[in-house]
Amino acid sequence: MKKPIVSIIMGSDSDLNIMSEAARILDEFKIPYEITVVSAHRSPKRMAAYAATLSSRGIKAVIAGAGGAAHLPGVAAALTTVPVIGVPIITRSFKGIDSLLSIVQMPLGVPVATVGINNAGNAALISVRMLAVWDPRVQHLLEAYHESMEKTVQQKAAGLKRLGYHAYLKKK
Amino acid sequence: MKKPIVSIIMGSDSDLNIMSEAARILDEFKIPYEITVVSAHRSPKRMAAYAATLSSRGIKAVIAGAGGAAHLPGVAAALTTVPVIGVPIITRSFKGIDSLLSIVQMPLGVPVATVGINNAGNAALISVRMLAVWDPRVQHLLEAYHESMEKTVQQKAAGLKRLGYHAYLKKK
Amino acid sequence: MKKPIVSIIMGSDSDLNIMSEAARILDEFKIPYEITVVSAHRSPKRMAAYAATLSSRGIKAVIAGAGGAAHLPGVAAALTTVPVIGVPIITRSFKGIDSLLSIVQMPLGVPVATVGINNAGNAALISVRMLAVWDPRVQHLLEAYHESMEKTVQQKAAGLKRLGYHAYLKKK
Amino acid sequence: MKKPIVSIIMGSDSDLNIMSEAARILDEFKIPYEITVVSAHRSPKRMAAYAATLSSRGIKAVIAGAGGAAHLPGVAAALTTVPVIGVPIITRSFKGIDSLLSIVQMPLGVPVATVGINNAGNAALISVRMLAVWDPRVQHLLEAYHESMEKTVQQKAAGLKRLGYHAYLKKK
Amino acid sequence: MKKPIVSIIMGSDSDLNIMSEAARILDEFKIPYEITVVSAHRSPKRMAAYAATLSSRGIKAVIAGAGGAAHLPGVAAALTTVPVIGVPIITRSFKGIDSLLSIVQMPLGVPVATVGINNAGNAALISVRMLAVWDPRVQHLLEAYHESMEKTVQQKAAGLKRLGYHAYLKKK
Amino acid sequence: MKKPIVSIIMGSDSDLNIMSEAARILDEFKIPYEITVVSAHRSPKRMAAYAATLSSRGIKAVIAGAGGAAHLPGVAAALTTVPVIGVPIITRSFKGIDSLLSIVQMPLGVPVATVGINNAGNAALISVRMLAVWDPRVQHLLEAYHESMEKTVQQKAAGLKRLGYHAYLKKK
Amino acid sequence: MKKPIVSIIMGSDSDLNIMSEAARILDEFKIPYEITVVSAHRSPKRMAAYAATLSSRGIKAVIAGAGGAAHLPGVAAALTTVPVIGVPIITRSFKGIDSLLSIVQMPLGVPVATVGINNAGNAALISVRMLAVWDPRVQHLLEAYHESMEKTVQQKAAGLKRLGYHAYLKKK
Amino acid sequence: MKKPIVSIIMGSDSDLNIMSEAARILDEFKIPYEITVVSAHRSPKRMAAYAATLSSRGIKAVIAGAGGAAHLPGVAAALTTVPVIGVPIITRSFKGIDSLLSIVQMPLGVPVATVGINNAGNAALISVRMLAVWDPRVQHLLEAYHESMEKTVQQKAAGLKRLGYHAYLKKK
Repeated sequence: MKKPIVSIIMGSDSDLNIMSEAARILDEFKIPYEITVVSAHRSPKRMAAYAATLSSRGIKAVIAGAGGAAHLPGVAAALTTVPVIGVPIITRSFKGIDSLLSIVQMPLGVPVATVGINNAGNAALISVRMLAVWDPRVQHLLEAYHESMEKTVQQKAAGLKRLGYHAYLKKK
Repeated sequence: MKKPIVSIIMGSDSDLNIMSEAARILDEFKIPYEITVVSAHRSPKRMAAYAATLSSRGIKAVIAGAGGAAHLPGVAAALTTVPVIGVPIITRSFKGIDSLLSIVQMPLGVPVATVGINNAGNAALISVRMLAVWDPRVQHLLEAYHESMEKTVQQKAAGLKRLGYHAYLKKK
Repeated sequence: MKKPIVSIIMGSDSDLNIMSEAARILDEFKIPYEITVVSAHRSPKRMAAYAATLSSRGIKAVIAGAGGAAHLPGVAAALTTVPVIGVPIITRSFKGIDSLLSIVQMPLGVPVATVGINNAGNAALISVRMLAVWDPRVQHLLEAYHESMEKTVQQKAAGLKRLGYHAYLKKK
Repeated sequence: MKKPIVSIIMGSDSDLNIMSEAARILDEFKIPYEITVVSAHRSPKRMAAYAATLSSRGIKAVIAGAGGAAHLPGVAAALTTVPVIGVPIITRSFKGIDSLLSIVQMPLGVPVATVGINNAGNAALISVRMLAVWDPRVQHLLEAYHESMEKTVQQKAAGLKRLGYHAYLKKK
Repeated sequence: MKKPIVSIIMGSDSDLNIMSEAARILDEFKIPYEITVVSAHRSPKRMAAYAATLSSRGIKAVIAGAGGAAHLPGVAAALTTVPVIGVPIITRSFKGIDSLLSIVQMPLGVPVATVGINNAGNAALISVRMLAVWDPRVQHLLEAYHESMEKTVQQKAAGLKRLGYHAYLKKK
Repeated sequence: MKKPIVSIIMGSDSDLNIMSEAARILDEFKIPYEITVVSAHRSPKRMAAYAATLSSRGIKAVIAGAGGAAHLPGVAAALTTVPVIGVPIITRSFKGIDSLLSIVQMPLGVPVATVGINNAGNAALISVRMLAVWDPRVQHLLEAYHESMEKTVQQKAAGLKRLGYHAYLKKK
Repeated sequence: MKKPIVSIIMGSDSDLNIMSEAARILDEFKIPYEITVVSAHRSPKRMAAYAATLSSRGIKAVIAGAGGAAHLPGVAAALTTVPVIGVPIITRSFKGIDSLLSIVQMPLGVPVATVGINNAGNAALISVRMLAVWDPRVQHLLEAYHESMEKTVQQKAAGLKRLGYHAYLKKK
Repeated sequence: MKKPIVSIIMGSDSDLNIMSEAARILDEFKIPYEITVVSAHRSPKRMAAYAATLSSRGIKAVIAGAGGAAHLPGVAAALTTVPVIGVPIITRSFKGIDSLLSIVQMPLGVPVATVGINNAGNAALISVRMLAVWDPRVQHLLEAYHESMEKTVQQKAAGLKRLGYHAYLKKK
């Protein structure tokens, strides 16, 4: 098994059903990664120890998911120089707006690259784009991914034209 | 000079004009405190070192001001068991709502006692209340403070009655 | 039975399922408390009578939960000098943002220490921290509580590593 | 001087420049009123004493302005059965949304009739409408007020037609 | 049957389940009312015709419920001098915030007395308060209503004390 | 079959259940239209090719539905001079506010005529109004549509009067 | 002078500085229009009279600007079948969000084509697009307008390249 | 002069005063970049042509700033596989929340790495982190940058301790 080059972290295993989408996308692009639980609030010692090794272990991107007062991505970004991609997890009262603002509004000097709420898949695709500019194999897969998206839209358009909207809605 | 029992911290000295109101109130109640700059993002080492000593040095409350992705109070609360009172600092785009949510929406286990936006004075008064329940001297001053508020309202009401609203508005 | 040192109040018994989490945490820390219903709007006489006795009865912290135009914590803070911790209860239309702003945005002079929406557990933990700085027994339990949180994260991380995310998600 | 039948109250004299608009409108309709300062938070004793007399003194409507955790109108409504009209005062960070929600989201049983942010004039006009349904003199003035509004619009429309928009804008 | 003195209107019969709470409260206070459907947008002719008769028929208050671009209360207020109480109805995307702002933010001159989202009961209680200041029978019932609220809170507090929170929660 | 004069587009077939309401209304007014799937993000080539033909094919209005970072209507408006009507689709975390702002806040020069969230029916009715000012047949149908709305309100009002609100609610 | 085919209306002449941008754009495209003041709230009679003539006078589009509880566009749309384009005017407390929601969230049946806050220019351009699909002269001017926008961007890009960002910023 | 490896783009030169901060940071890290104006809405042809060359010209990251219906970053991300970092520019009515949501809420498949409002400096620092994981020279500078941030905080803390808050505030 290859050494991981992407790290997926989350503050609680209750976020795993969302964050596993990032793992699924990295699997699809055959990019080796590690996935673990680490909390900036509940496990500050583990947080510091984990972040300290990222750069020297050759990790090229960290994908960090967190909800509420979502400090994990920002605290990770303070403790490493590896690029950190933040995934705001949806919350009950604020629907993830609290998570989004806690992650995206970082002060100058310590950036977090933020994606849409619950969009762990897009976080993975940012890491894929970051690798693709250096690695022709990944670039090739990424271009195929884009062509496949374009084709899927065309197929749906063709299906809708053929069936009409009544039949298309029933079939779905 | 007496050993400090309250700590006032902020992520940047640009927050000092707001946070100094907490110091002013503690001066008024003759409660010894320390006031310093420490950033969860820009100075993570200093953050960890500073938080580690709070409890053993006899600090009874931490007042932490921060704006934007305002992680300072939460990170402090993760690193100490001393009560942390968070002051959300106003921001340009979100007017401090980002700061408020980043501070108040902490996960179960690591609480931050949050006050209104920019209201460092109320943060100090929470620490005063916390001390007053154990210290009759502080309790006495706090009761006088409440009576003085009631009296001020009565004086304004009397002035408004005497002058009428036209004259009162001009005089202000 | 010991004399209560924390008071848990709520405006309506419909908030009890949320507020009982505060009681559960205080039970865990063996801190004696009382829990009751008192409404700033529907029972103003009971409100004034209840608040008047808090300080003299030795209550060290009030935990007050309220939703909507959530005046209970603020009105309590106006009627006592004991520290008041406010718990904004979720609402249907504003998801508790109305409750949060009504509780946290108190004027200078009458502070309420506010926690996250529905987070009665964190309100209790603030009272625990307030007691721990004076009481070694509570301090000891609080440190154990923090160590236990750190351990739980480590166990989840170990489990996720052992099982992989597919198996871990199924097992949950 | 006639006995007041409307009461205008505010938590702080800093709200007087807004609230005096209500007085100005009541002057225009020759409705006797009183105007004073009373704070639910800073002067709870004065609050209770003041509210207790409203009904027996023949006050027909209370206009209460407050900002932030704007409890004044709601607390007044809990302490009297006289109709209470709430004026949310603009705030710096939330622009009065906090005031609006604190005033309008009252629980069933204790209503506050809320107007737009800073719109003390409309609060006065609600009290005018409430009096007009019983008092033909006020009803007559109110109908004239509406006709005058309609006429003002027609005059502006005529002016704009005559001058064209370039000249009209310059003239303003 | 007595002549109605309160009018309850709504833009659509889909709001009737909310607005009927206002009718229920008026029934409780034995205040005669009428309840009907009239839309500012879908039935502008009926709107104008209906509003024109309100004052001369002796209606003392209009309770108008509307959701979304909730123009009904404001349009009613423009077409009559009778006091209009607006009830913002909850909506799917904005949870009634759109309704609330459309109703409460009326321009100076044409006020709507606004209550909380879906709180048709409080709208009725405002009309009750408006009648009570002139009618001793209603005033008497209103005072009993307030005493009954205070009593209910006391009974709940007693029940909670007797049972403890575990048993109380189970019983509910 | 007649040549289409309205185009209904959406970024994903998951929006078809909402957007088909526009088709249903156009069917009702016997206005020929086409309906298809085209994504500004996932199929940029198809987007450019499709938009290029709209004007020359005689399309008089484009109805474009999109959710989240809802760029489809704006990108369409940049690529054609045909009027574009945007339908913000509801989203999970922001309930469509993100969609609404992404669609309505277009820069000067490239307008999108925006309707309420999920209100594809109103988008179709805007295109109907646009055609009606030139086509007496459509104008005639549109006037009938308005009369029918007025009549429906009257029927509901009559039903509510006849049954009373208790029986009316049960019958629904 | 030609008969107007576009109507620009606003509820108050304080909105004229914003709404005159629509007039300026229509001047640029040589489209005859009328511009006037009419208020749904303060001049309901004038509102009804004005709206009744729009269709028969050959008006092809109404541009209606309003702020706060911005009912003008919706009330106009209820009273005419001519397409109504709504311009939400900025407000002090809600920055125009109240205006936007009051205009865009119209119920099914009575649509308003809404543009961005204060963007009267885009409202005019929607009416231009509506006319261009029928009138080759307008279509020609509209295509030239788009080409000119593209050219302006290219010129700015060239200027920035030539000068570098330091010099370009100084020159602005 | 070296070939650019980062591209800084913006929809309008009015955003240059914000976006030039990204250029300033890249200058500091001696990373070659290009900076230009390209609008997704006003110059769609230039947009397509520009995006098509990014990957083949060796651009490793695109930094795109946009405000309002801020489609530029998302449209760029649809037209290239190079990582796109989005900078939401502040707006007058929504203070940049519209820009933020339009940029961050991209659909799965076409990600934009979003930073805080107006925070072009952090966008540049994300590109620096992306380069640093491959380039030891950049990594070395980045570590020095972090050490310098930590040192600055320590110096401010020392200054505040030496002067006390009164003198420190005056000196600033």
